[in-house]
Amino acid sequence: MDQEQTRQLLQAVADGTASVEEAIEQLKMEPFQDLGFAKVDHHRALRQGAAEVIYGAGKTPGQIIDITAALLSHGQKTVLITRLGPAAAEEVGAVHPLTYHEMGHIGIVGPMPAPTGIGTIVVATGGTSDMPVAEEAALTAEALGNQVTRLYDIGVAGIHRMLSHTEELMSARVVIAVAGMEGALTSVIGGLVSCPVIGVPTSVGYGASFGGVAALLAMLNSCASGVSVVNIDNGFGAGFLASRINHMEGKA
Amino acid sequence: MDQEQTRQLLQAVADGTASVEEAIEQLKMEPFQDLGFAKVDHHRALRQGAAEVIYGAGKTPGQIIDITAALLSHGQKTVLITRLGPAAAEEVGAVHPLTYHEMGHIGIVGPMPAPTGIGTIVVATGGTSDMPVAEEAALTAEALGNQVTRLYDIGVAGIHRMLSHTEELMSARVVIAVAGMEGALTSVIGGLVSCPVIGVPTSVGYGASFGGVAALLAMLNSCASGVSVVNIDNGFGAGFLASRINHMEGKA
Amino acid sequence: MDQEQTRQLLQAVADGTASVEEAIEQLKMEPFQDLGFAKVDHHRALRQGAAEVIYGAGKTPGQIIDITAALLSHGQKTVLITRLGPAAAEEVGAVHPLTYHEMGHIGIVGPMPAPTGIGTIVVATGGTSDMPVAEEAALTAEALGNQVTRLYDIGVAGIHRMLSHTEELMSARVVIAVAGMEGALTSVIGGLVSCPVIGVPTSVGYGASFGGVAALLAMLNSCASGVSVVNIDNGFGAGFLASRINHMEGKA
Amino acid sequence: MDQEQTRQLLQAVADGTASVEEAIEQLKMEPFQDLGFAKVDHHRALRQGAAEVIYGAGKTPGQIIDITAALLSHGQKTVLITRLGPAAAEEVGAVHPLTYHEMGHIGIVGPMPAPTGIGTIVVATGGTSDMPVAEEAALTAEALGNQVTRLYDIGVAGIHRMLSHTEELMSARVVIAVAGMEGALTSVIGGLVSCPVIGVPTSVGYGASFGGVAALLAMLNSCASGVSVVNIDNGFGAGFLASRINHMEGKA
Amino acid sequence: MDQEQTRQLLQAVADGTASVEEAIEQLKMEPFQDLGFAKVDHHRALRQGAAEVIYGAGKTPGQIIDITAALLSHGQKTVLITRLGPAAAEEVGAVHPLTYHEMGHIGIVGPMPAPTGIGTIVVATGGTSDMPVAEEAALTAEALGNQVTRLYDIGVAGIHRMLSHTEELMSARVVIAVAGMEGALTSVIGGLVSCPVIGVPTSVGYGASFGGVAALLAMLNSCASGVSVVNIDNGFGAGFLASRINHMEGKA
Amino acid sequence: MDQEQTRQLLQAVADGTASVEEAIEQLKMEPFQDLGFAKVDHHRALRQGAAEVIYGAGKTPGQIIDITAALLSHGQKTVLITRLGPAAAEEVGAVHPLTYHEMGHIGIVGPMPAPTGIGTIVVATGGTSDMPVAEEAALTAEALGNQVTRLYDIGVAGIHRMLSHTEELMSARVVIAVAGMEGALTSVIGGLVSCPVIGVPTSVGYGASFGGVAALLAMLNSCASGVSVVNIDNGFGAGFLASRINHMEGKA
Amino acid sequence: MDQEQTRQLLQAVADGTASVEEAIEQLKMEPFQDLGFAKVDHHRALRQGAAEVIYGAGKTPGQIIDITAALLSHGQKTVLITRLGPAAAEEVGAVHPLTYHEMGHIGIVGPMPAPTGIGTIVVATGGTSDMPVAEEAALTAEALGNQVTRLYDIGVAGIHRMLSHTEELMSARVVIAVAGMEGALTSVIGGLVSCPVIGVPTSVGYGASFGGVAALLAMLNSCASGVSVVNIDNGFGAGFLASRINHMEGKA
Amino acid sequence: MDQEQTRQLLQAVADGTASVEEAIEQLKMEPFQDLGFAKVDHHRALRQGAAEVIYGAGKTPGQIIDITAALLSHGQKTVLITRLGPAAAEEVGAVHPLTYHEMGHIGIVGPMPAPTGIGTIVVATGGTSDMPVAEEAALTAEALGNQVTRLYDIGVAGIHRMLSHTEELMSARVVIAVAGMEGALTSVIGGLVSCPVIGVPTSVGYGASFGGVAALLAMLNSCASGVSVVNIDNGFGAGFLASRINHMEGKA
Repeated sequence: MDQEQTRQLLQAVADGTASVEEAIEQLKMEPFQDLGFAKVDHHRALRQGAAEVIYGAGKTPGQIIDITAALLSHGQKTVLITRLGPAAAEEVGAVHPLTYHEMGHIGIVGPMPAPTGIGTIVVATGGTSDMPVAEEAALTAEALGNQVTRLYDIGVAGIHRMLSHTEELMSARVVIAVAGMEGALTSVIGGLVSCPVIGVPTSVGYGASFGGVAALLAMLNSCASGVSVVNIDNGFGAGFLASRINHMEGKA
Repeated sequence: MDQEQTRQLLQAVADGTASVEEAIEQLKMEPFQDLGFAKVDHHRALRQGAAEVIYGAGKTPGQIIDITAALLSHGQKTVLITRLGPAAAEEVGAVHPLTYHEMGHIGIVGPMPAPTGIGTIVVATGGTSDMPVAEEAALTAEALGNQVTRLYDIGVAGIHRMLSHTEELMSARVVIAVAGMEGALTSVIGGLVSCPVIGVPTSVGYGASFGGVAALLAMLNSCASGVSVVNIDNGFGAGFLASRINHMEGKA
Repeated sequence: MDQEQTRQLLQAVADGTASVEEAIEQLKMEPFQDLGFAKVDHHRALRQGAAEVIYGAGKTPGQIIDITAALLSHGQKTVLITRLGPAAAEEVGAVHPLTYHEMGHIGIVGPMPAPTGIGTIVVATGGTSDMPVAEEAALTAEALGNQVTRLYDIGVAGIHRMLSHTEELMSARVVIAVAGMEGALTSVIGGLVSCPVIGVPTSVGYGASFGGVAALLAMLNSCASGVSVVNIDNGFGAGFLASRINHMEGKA
Repeated sequence: MDQEQTRQLLQAVADGTASVEEAIEQLKMEPFQDLGFAKVDHHRALRQGAAEVIYGAGKTPGQIIDITAALLSHGQKTVLITRLGPAAAEEVGAVHPLTYHEMGHIGIVGPMPAPTGIGTIVVATGGTSDMPVAEEAALTAEALGNQVTRLYDIGVAGIHRMLSHTEELMSARVVIAVAGMEGALTSVIGGLVSCPVIGVPTSVGYGASFGGVAALLAMLNSCASGVSVVNIDNGFGAGFLASRINHMEGKA
Repeated sequence: MDQEQTRQLLQAVADGTASVEEAIEQLKMEPFQDLGFAKVDHHRALRQGAAEVIYGAGKTPGQIIDITAALLSHGQKTVLITRLGPAAAEEVGAVHPLTYHEMGHIGIVGPMPAPTGIGTIVVATGGTSDMPVAEEAALTAEALGNQVTRLYDIGVAGIHRMLSHTEELMSARVVIAVAGMEGALTSVIGGLVSCPVIGVPTSVGYGASFGGVAALLAMLNSCASGVSVVNIDNGFGAGFLASRINHMEGKA
Repeated sequence: MDQEQTRQLLQAVADGTASVEEAIEQLKMEPFQDLGFAKVDHHRALRQGAAEVIYGAGKTPGQIIDITAALLSHGQKTVLITRLGPAAAEEVGAVHPLTYHEMGHIGIVGPMPAPTGIGTIVVATGGTSDMPVAEEAALTAEALGNQVTRLYDIGVAGIHRMLSHTEELMSARVVIAVAGMEGALTSVIGGLVSCPVIGVPTSVGYGASFGGVAALLAMLNSCASGVSVVNIDNGFGAGFLASRINHMEGKA
Repeated sequence: MDQEQTRQLLQAVADGTASVEEAIEQLKMEPFQDLGFAKVDHHRALRQGAAEVIYGAGKTPGQIIDITAALLSHGQKTVLITRLGPAAAEEVGAVHPLTYHEMGHIGIVGPMPAPTGIGTIVVATGGTSDMPVAEEAALTAEALGNQVTRLYDIGVAGIHRMLSHTEELMSARVVIAVAGMEGALTSVIGGLVSCPVIGVPTSVGYGASFGGVAALLAMLNSCASGVSVVNIDNGFGAGFLASRINHMEGKA
Repeated sequence: MDQEQTRQLLQAVADGTASVEEAIEQLKMEPFQDLGFAKVDHHRALRQGAAEVIYGAGKTPGQIIDITAALLSHGQKTVLITRLGPAAAEEVGAVHPLTYHEMGHIGIVGPMPAPTGIGTIVVATGGTSDMPVAEEAALTAEALGNQVTRLYDIGVAGIHRMLSHTEELMSARVVIAVAGMEGALTSVIGGLVSCPVIGVPTSVGYGASFGGVAALLAMLNSCASGVSVVNIDNGFGAGFLASRINHMEGKA
């Protein structure tokens, strides 16, 4: 119930077409809608044509199939399913037109939407082992309507590999820097570019990497400005945030 | 040395007005400027009119005075000094026209620039004790040319306090959510708004807050999408990143 | 041996029907019962009609069957078995009249007792993945004679979901708030209600959730008053404590 | 604005004594009170005669004086100020009738209220060094209208000291067990009594006590049922929760 | 080479029956035996009749069989094999006369020696789940020639269970207190007895027990004097140390 | 009340010289002494002539003076005060005949008792910085009636320093190995000797020593048998335990 | 593009045989080679005859086969494959002439090169369980052209075992000390030798070894000078670094 | 006692000029010198002309003065004192000819020795705040006879700063990379150079830098080969090790 609807309800009370009791009841039944809470549902906040998202982990194939069906029946064109295992993908794919991206554990039902974002999102990784997380980020961004450039295996131990991509990095609207082990990629990219950089630490590594903690700490302590961090292995979160930034309209 | 300057140098070699040796020497002296690395210097990447930044911690008042003087002499209008203690502020203020904001430990030399960002940055805190970090963020954003709305002490333990500011939160272009203790503010705001949310954990708290670790972990694990995190107490980093996002031009 | 029995023993000594040696021996054999230590056995401290509890983890089906049989033979109506796997449940169910609740890994032998608690216990979760722990809590409370209301998947990332249950939350006698990831649910509920809130962090999450540590720290640092915390995934402990509070008689 | 007041406002609109615009304005100014959110303000949720609470840490004496004055002017009889240092206490005491309890860093303005709770709250400590935290808990409970029994220095290393207080422990309505070092007190008491036990780990100890972490972990892992835990050194939180439980009315 | 042998060698040099070069070579080849380092080999330091020990973890059944054979052929009567899985036990048992104790993962080849220790070693556990570690300790102690009393499942949550064994505890020469979860057993026993207490934290527990860390910290912070601690789950270490203490001869 | 006194009381009841009510009252007042709990008080468990102990940390000089006076008036010859600062020592020394050992922060009132232990306790340290903790251990052991040999600064980085003391180490009845940094001393000594070794990690070090955690972990993981560990910097605990072991009578 | 090539390019411009545009394009295409970045590729930095390295973890047998083929076709004689499982080794061995070292999980395609290093590298371990990591180090060093001496199972708990190898240790050019549990080996060797010592903590151990953290901290805190540390279980890193040091030419 | 002296002693026995008893006694008094253990004393292992080292932390000025005097009187030319505060430096300087380097907390008594190392040691830092640790490393290396090049404030956030020093880095014999915060410097340098790189994490930073842990973990997880790590802030250790490597003679 928005301000205008509240005004009408009160007017109805003033007019005598609604009783005081009825007005109280209505204010009580939908207490939050007059505060605009419908917008809280972030899925609907995404632009036209972009994907709805299902977090696949911990859901049965049957549940995923049902939620997908419900979304499609409400007119959704594309459904993005994250953390979807190959076996579950097969079951879902038997019912819905699913494209499965095994590396990123991502399933996409329906067509990949055309890019609606303003610029390009670069997804960079330190090594090849970081690619599953990077793919989760990249496919999420693509499914949400973004142009994505992948720069994989450009880690800082061979700094020339990264520097040879300076141009792609510097023309990006958002960079997602995915790295495990010492996570230095984020700082080095953060020092090169002037757009927002989202660091995604990965659990790649062994010993004192502590399942991604080393990379996480490195990224949080980045001496480069313009860098922020999401949870270890959270490719989806990075892709979602990058898409949000890439869809922000500027001044016309 | 930008591309145009490189072209001129090479033209001079072609013209015979510069020798090969001279050209080599010049390319060697500034080897990265012809690669566009000057943009790496993020201070200069900031828009006209915005502040240069001096990280005051660990610098003597004398060093700060000198760097400020150098910046001003190069035409800089506003100089932002972070982590500046009151005693150092007094010394700097005796030489330069300093406005000192004690709560945020921020000094600003010269006029606060007019806002050039596209929208409004909201800086919200969970409690009153988080205000020093929030002020570091807010003043940084203002000094970099942003309109800032402060929503302090709207922590989740009294959820109605936050909800009464729904409108300001939902119309923000970026929200900086500053919170110590359990850091839940970030998640709750992240669930309300559809713009990027930057979480800043603070070291406010005691016992099992572990100097901000509890809030940091909470923010990293936020179940709300669109949230990313900076280091504990890193108000500057959040203000800088928010400004960067707020100055991104969209499609005209 | 209670005070009355002690009196009788001493009287027997005074009467000469018991020797001093015999009295010493008896006092020594059951040294603590005359101090009321029998009440220490918390199983018996539970009200009539409520369940005895078997912690199933680490016990063989055979052991569980035997203990259950012993309890039933002593007149126990309901036996609650926690952390009971499906395979073990099948074996126990072949011998005893077991109702198995797979989600909460709870088995209940005998009828679920009628509620004897004073009010209602609300068990709330942040997400659907927290439901196994929540069910352990809810079924424990029910087996101990409590009316339970389940409010699942009302996490703070969509704050309106929780607020739409304000009435149920505010009329609860105890709220058990079960949440993984950032664990903010507990604080937000703690700010809404005026009854005791028991936080149960769950190991749901990945990366920097550190197996429930993030949620645990968040709950311990809750800025809401009236909140206390139990171990990660300890649904039983929360249900037991909630039942204890819900059975406390007030002033008549 | 409670339901009755909302009814009156709507009636005034119906009566034409208030315009629709006026009603909207009033509903907007206090948008949550018609939703029952006034109860969210836990200070007001406390029973008549009990104290309002000011968290003194991080507040200047002037701020504390002003808040106290405001509370008193609104008819509050007793004001409880926690984490109040001796120097600040002196300043506050020069303006308001303050009783200062140095050990617990607690100041109380106005008379200590008569107990309104149903039973007795026992505050027990493992050692004498835990007494400051225990006093914070005990005085909080007293200021909130509870009868408190203090059992200090009854740690488990001399188990007979605790056992000699079995009767007081077993007749308590709530026990607050305050302990540093290995925190075993909570488990042992939890095994003795049948009322809720609130564990308060303290930062007392050295070396591998890690500022209270050892005691915190011990309490979280307590094998005794009916135990929950608050943050390290959080005497106030334990006293507040104990009071809440002790004021719960039962079935008449 | 002991002092006597050194003397003989030097005498040979003095006698001219050994050359200087030969003497140098011999001193160099066994440089440490003349320092008595043979005693460093702790296996041989054990008393006559006690067992040699093989740490079975990470050894193949074949290796264990061979080492056992070598020990037996050198006159060893009893061989203790720790951390021996059931499958490996079967293979070893096919070759050597092995008694396998499954709960403690202990195999003993040859007869259990008669007790040679001075008093009794009590091995106590908090719960039944701690029994595998306790058995490792108890069987180690028995195999090294000690009388062992087992007091299992006497955890502090039911303090009367422990107190009913006061006499056995107080007459022990060494107590090994084995406990997981909150590890309070060690402190409570440490407060009861006047002999050395060896705490063995176990990895029993879940959530914030962190694989035995909670119990380890509790034991390290024990407020009871006379307590020391070994590694998590290190039943062998405790049994070995207890045996060492129990075999120390006093003043005649 | 010991068994004999209980017998007399019961006899008095049998004789009619005490009423049943009187007997109940007496049994209730001292309920644990008839169980032999007086021995729980470990101070009295120490041998004749040895010191009572006051843990000085957190006690005011006045409190220490009073407790000391009480102990002396009960016939105690020697009082050991640990963790006693120089200023407090001066105050105590003005009232009681105090010998203050500044390095170990130990005060001893009255004469140092003659050794009553069976053998010698060696206190070894890795470096000179570990000496304060070592002195706490050594003086505690001396005050409790033990012969102590100090072997300071024999750390493993210069293994020959330790080996040159092989004889003293190998003839010790107990070795207390005090070390910070990497704590390797304990393992190396544990491999040399055949008596119990008590490891005391110290907080000496910087960086990744984490206040003694590195040394603590090293000692807990010692590959040498016969080693156990006390809390970081807990010299008293090691000295007390060593004394306990050194006073154990063997078979005559 | 090295300095000479740059000179030639500029000369071509000066000569008119290259246009300014062409020169710009070339400088842009290979911007780093004129800075000598080709040397950044460390594989090529290895001496003639030594092995190229493939990190086998996370690579499919097919990928390994292809990379190996590519390396061999470029004239590489020896290819070192680390972290290669037995199954993958079999597949690779079917295509390439592979020698598989199961303990170290190392595969070597082609002949082991003759030693080209200056001295001998000693690889020492504390126990037999550390041997897989030690073999990774030793085989890496051998494949890179070094003479390696293995001293396994010389841990400090039997210090005489290490001391009996004093000569081999003291004549080494680099020592790699591999140890789990308390990691004391590194310190003790560091105190014996005067060459660089590289500590490799291993994840061998249980309980408070925390997967190698105890050994890692011990090595970082080594009181011996000349010691540095690599990641837990990083045998390759240690072997590589040792080889690098062992191949450094001195002054002729 | 070296091999020659042992030979002489044995010869004396053979000659009859020394008795067997005398020889035994001498061998026992200095049991390790005949094994070459004198070389264990690493101070003497340093080359002629280089400094002896005193670790100043925890030593009184008086102690430092005395040790220095002793070293000088034994012919030492240069004495290096690390971790020397300004006040202590003043006291030492009043007695000995001390040059005090305040930033590195290093005092040097006597002349700085001429470089005897083979190449140049580069000491690089990420920021200006890392300079105290870097100076400790650099001055240590210089005092031990090495040529040192300082490259300060070349952190990766402005990668061009580091790259502009590529030549100095690539011609170094050893690089010491000193960095706090995210510690990425070490990896990036490790990827550039082909000499050994010693990472020194510093405690520079705040929040999630955890006193240097973030940098330490980053360096341990470096994906660059040839990198090893010393303790947080351990400039001395790095300088000492670098000197050791830089003084290794190669094949002539």
